[in-house]
Amino acid sequence: MSSIPEHLIPSRLAKRADFNKETIYAILDEALFCTISYVSAGKPFSIPTAFVRYGDKIYIHGSVGSHFIREIEKGIPVCISVTLMDALVVARSAFHHSINYRSVILFGNAEKIEKLEDKSEAFEWLTNKIVPGSWNYLRPIKENEINKTIALVFPLDEASAKVRTGMPIDDEEDLELPIWSGLIPLKTNRLRPVADPYSKDIDLPTHLAHLNRED
Amino acid sequence: MSSIPEHLIPSRLAKRADFNKETIYAILDEALFCTISYVSAGKPFSIPTAFVRYGDKIYIHGSVGSHFIREIEKGIPVCISVTLMDALVVARSAFHHSINYRSVILFGNAEKIEKLEDKSEAFEWLTNKIVPGSWNYLRPIKENEINKTIALVFPLDEASAKVRTGMPIDDEEDLELPIWSGLIPLKTNRLRPVADPYSKDIDLPTHLAHLNRED
Repeated sequence: MSSIPEHLIPSRLAKRADFNKETIYAILDEALFCTISYVSAGKPFSIPTAFVRYGDKIYIHGSVGSHFIREIEKGIPVCISVTLMDALVVARSAFHHSINYRSVILFGNAEKIEKLEDKSEAFEWLTNKIVPGSWNYLRPIKENEINKTIALVFPLDEASAKVRTGMPIDDEEDLELPIWSGLIPLKTNRLRPVADPYSKDIDLPTHLAHLNRED
Repeated sequence: MSSIPEHLIPSRLAKRADFNKETIYAILDEALFCTISYVSAGKPFSIPTAFVRYGDKIYIHGSVGSHFIREIEKGIPVCISVTLMDALVVARSAFHHSINYRSVILFGNAEKIEKLEDKSEAFEWLTNKIVPGSWNYLRPIKENEINKTIALVFPLDEASAKVRTGMPIDDEEDLELPIWSGLIPLKTNRLRPVADPYSKDIDLPTHLAHLNRED
């Protein structure tokens, strides 16, 4: 990852920024959505959307009728933010409370994917990220569905990660206080699938079978 | 909530926008963090941060050394985005896949909280949101800690919610296909607390006792 121009980085981001590809990829691959920010008429806008990383790029898609997509497909500067929350960091004082998180911030400009096969491939990656192993099981995508959708790609050249891990960092003089301190881990789980009315008698496909247990 | 000027709203947001206070409050109260976007030198920036809603406003805080906080404390326009993911919506075709989510978008300008007591109150709300019932148990906050922190408040006047619920909406001709379709619910849990080395012999306080079970 090439580094972001110094004057563009919030100072506290710079201090902990991590440009390691593996760190950045792992966060992007675990997160289900990103928040995309852009400027319109001088004002900030942001919108959450699903995305997939493949290689050194991330891909999003949206309807040809989406105002947001029509704005950013022009190639205007965007900022993409991805955040995972790992634990609440409970200190002895409110002041030292924190959150263990992993986040990625990425600056870039969208490029539009034009070729049908390339768009279809990007949809396949996204579908298989959200529901691993599902693409080949589904009713095949149709050409008119691809045409109704805009696919955009962003290079990860200007991406960096920020990560906080570990225990709270209290003032030394507070360490012996009889106050409990530590972490409350957070975990997001996929629960047991709920069939729609037309699927009641259809077995769960193999790629979803591992979710078919009591929660 | 007063409505957002039409020309400032992405068209697909406008279609599903919900200005109901109860909807907006419930999303803000459940979410642990928001993503704040702002414009600097004509470019978009965004950063995730913890926040709390109290009444008709939301409150954030940050270090006096934070570039991000110093930018937005000037009262420049910001866009605040909050997103909760409820379920993966698994359709018979990739095209109709979706996500059940609840999100809030808010446009506004920060006001800085100056009075010590008002800042302390905002910290209390935030602490009790992140770890309910904890404020009075902790080592009391000190005046110099409050002075090292900037607290900002945003009115919720220009806030709206977007919510997707329910089953996938497939093409009618696909409904009889032998393809499973439905929801994969998502749930974020707080796991069993992990004590820091100095807290090993300290009982979990009452307000955390309910988390002390096998996951």
